[in-house]
Amino acid sequence: MKKNYLENVQDTLLLGAGPSGVAPSTYRAISQNIIGHLDPYFIKIMEEIKSGLRDLMQTKNEVTVPLSGTGSSGMEAAFVNTVEPGDKVLILENGVFGNRMADVAGRLGAVVTKEEFKWGTPVRPERVKELLAKDHYKIVAIVHAETSTGVCNPVCEIGQMVHDAGSLYLVDAVTSLGGIPVEVDKWHADICYSGTQKCLSCPPGAAPITFSEAAMKVVRGRKTKVPNWYLDMNLLTHYWGGNKRVYHHTAPISMMYALYQAIYNIEEEGAENVYRRHLRVHRRLVSGLEKMGMKMLVDPKYRLPELNTVIVPKGVDEAQLRSQLLKRYHIEVSGGLGDLAGKVIRIGLMGYNATEENVDTLLAAMKEIIGEQLAQNAA
Amino acid sequence: MKKNYLENVQDTLLLGAGPSGVAPSTYRAISQNIIGHLDPYFIKIMEEIKSGLRDLMQTKNEVTVPLSGTGSSGMEAAFVNTVEPGDKVLILENGVFGNRMADVAGRLGAVVTKEEFKWGTPVRPERVKELLAKDHYKIVAIVHAETSTGVCNPVCEIGQMVHDAGSLYLVDAVTSLGGIPVEVDKWHADICYSGTQKCLSCPPGAAPITFSEAAMKVVRGRKTKVPNWYLDMNLLTHYWGGNKRVYHHTAPISMMYALYQAIYNIEEEGAENVYRRHLRVHRRLVSGLEKMGMKMLVDPKYRLPELNTVIVPKGVDEAQLRSQLLKRYHIEVSGGLGDLAGKVIRIGLMGYNATEENVDTLLAAMKEIIGEQLAQNAA
Repeated sequence: MKKNYLENVQDTLLLGAGPSGVAPSTYRAISQNIIGHLDPYFIKIMEEIKSGLRDLMQTKNEVTVPLSGTGSSGMEAAFVNTVEPGDKVLILENGVFGNRMADVAGRLGAVVTKEEFKWGTPVRPERVKELLAKDHYKIVAIVHAETSTGVCNPVCEIGQMVHDAGSLYLVDAVTSLGGIPVEVDKWHADICYSGTQKCLSCPPGAAPITFSEAAMKVVRGRKTKVPNWYLDMNLLTHYWGGNKRVYHHTAPISMMYALYQAIYNIEEEGAENVYRRHLRVHRRLVSGLEKMGMKMLVDPKYRLPELNTVIVPKGVDEAQLRSQLLKRYHIEVSGGLGDLAGKVIRIGLMGYNATEENVDTLLAAMKEIIGEQLAQNAA
Repeated sequence: MKKNYLENVQDTLLLGAGPSGVAPSTYRAISQNIIGHLDPYFIKIMEEIKSGLRDLMQTKNEVTVPLSGTGSSGMEAAFVNTVEPGDKVLILENGVFGNRMADVAGRLGAVVTKEEFKWGTPVRPERVKELLAKDHYKIVAIVHAETSTGVCNPVCEIGQMVHDAGSLYLVDAVTSLGGIPVEVDKWHADICYSGTQKCLSCPPGAAPITFSEAAMKVVRGRKTKVPNWYLDMNLLTHYWGGNKRVYHHTAPISMMYALYQAIYNIEEEGAENVYRRHLRVHRRLVSGLEKMGMKMLVDPKYRLPELNTVIVPKGVDEAQLRSQLLKRYHIEVSGGLGDLAGKVIRIGLMGYNATEENVDTLLAAMKEIIGEQLAQNAA
């Protein structure tokens, strides 16, 4: 290391699929002096995080903790704790993250039924009903906010069906928590996880997760040990709770400070106000894009305010558009994934960065670059 | 959250078993504005981290990356990538972390032989030789620096034997990396991992890990997929390397900044100078403790400079001693684990906090508290 690269990190407006922008108070929090992970004061902070997450996830679940890994470790923990070889798992897939669920569960020996829905459209509850009538699944899994397509799935309606069918309901809330309401108890979600780097506006590095009593009963009653010591909820619940803490691993102290502050910020603004702000800036963005003649991928009824999938207009080079936004305007937006690669761009309006000002900045920059591209095409 | 607990975090001198103290430059790094995890500039930083880790771990291994989890996720990754059900694994155990290895490997279906050595003493190479002559193991695992006892195991001598026996050699370097030399290639270590929160003087939250070409051949040639999507090295190598990055998870950007800076700091001081400093302050501590009539648990030949296990003298209440150090002097030291609980205290002199001044501060505080305790006993 001849020079210190950190001295030249460009201040970037993060309007992609994540990580999202971080509030100054959260940057201050993450750089606060660390204390021991068994220090009684740190345990107080852990308790506050648990209680803050319960409020935000709208659950009374005792087991509600942040895992010491990124959002993807939440998905891993959700399946590895509940799946045993041979268990039937139904994955409702309409994007990259549903696909990933099938991969994660399959590796653990689950017998996976993956029901595919067209990307950009939601999972259809009537189809789920049919499937649940035909077979019994130990787990039914769905992504609330599909980051790859910008679709919000009807998790509440499906939750009631899954509950009635006597299956565990596993919900990915990575891109929803902190941006739109996540109502774990109302949805009958038994396992629900998120990540810090989306609408919580916290750097990536932790994964809030909650397990219902029914889910924990399954975890505690396994025939085999959880084949993952690091994410074993039997061990983690002793570390994160109860009267006597049992040392497991060393919690990422600085990340916990940041998560604490991120939750604090949402509470201070008021979660309902935060959701309203996300909706407001989303509408402003869509209206601006439509004025420029652009179209959204997803039907208005199922659009996520925090993740906007825009169809790339004819004549526009999307890779060039994104690279110019980053290089000239220091704005990050994301490209499409899977079959949508090259066809859409994804604009994140998440947490701290979900403001009118940022929308206007982005629209102006896009207008400029697209105008240049079209002029070049015409020339 | 009625008040912000972060406003009252006590500045604490961390002289326990970890986390260790963090340099101001590393605190600055962790709070630097984040950029996208696929931003070309972030990829430059990733490349620098990989190359810095290679230097520090003294290896040419291409696959040398930080995992997005704490040191314990390093242990998980080491085993989950290489073990398939039925594989024979020999664990050389002389402390808590050797025991944990047996648990981790067993959960993955390994047939574990755990060879126990007395806590506080090193693994004996001659015994390892006997074991390797009697049976063939796919993996032989050992902890370099046993955090629970303060013993430094003879990993180099044993490495030659394991190499000659044709087994993969798995070494835990959580508490050694950055404090004493870690020589991956010289030891014939095939898999070696560490944590950030010990002698690297970086907050907890990432796990440097390296795989030799022989180890990667095993990972790539598995009969079954790695039963852990999050830590699958087949996927992680595509994310962290090669010409075309494949999105896997979102790296913990802020932690990566901190790790970058921590490595940078060691390079700037010079790794050899850092090791010498650890040795020097260790000797000062031991000499001070001996003057106070205290004894070390471990034979001088096998003592770790960065983790000092002190036998609690008769008449001293160690829980009281530790709690008084924390409350009155804001110094954290650690208690004993397992069979050593209540019998020893563990003093960490790691990274940034390994200074003469800190040793003197600690000795003076201990002298005061122990003096009071003994006076009370006499009264």
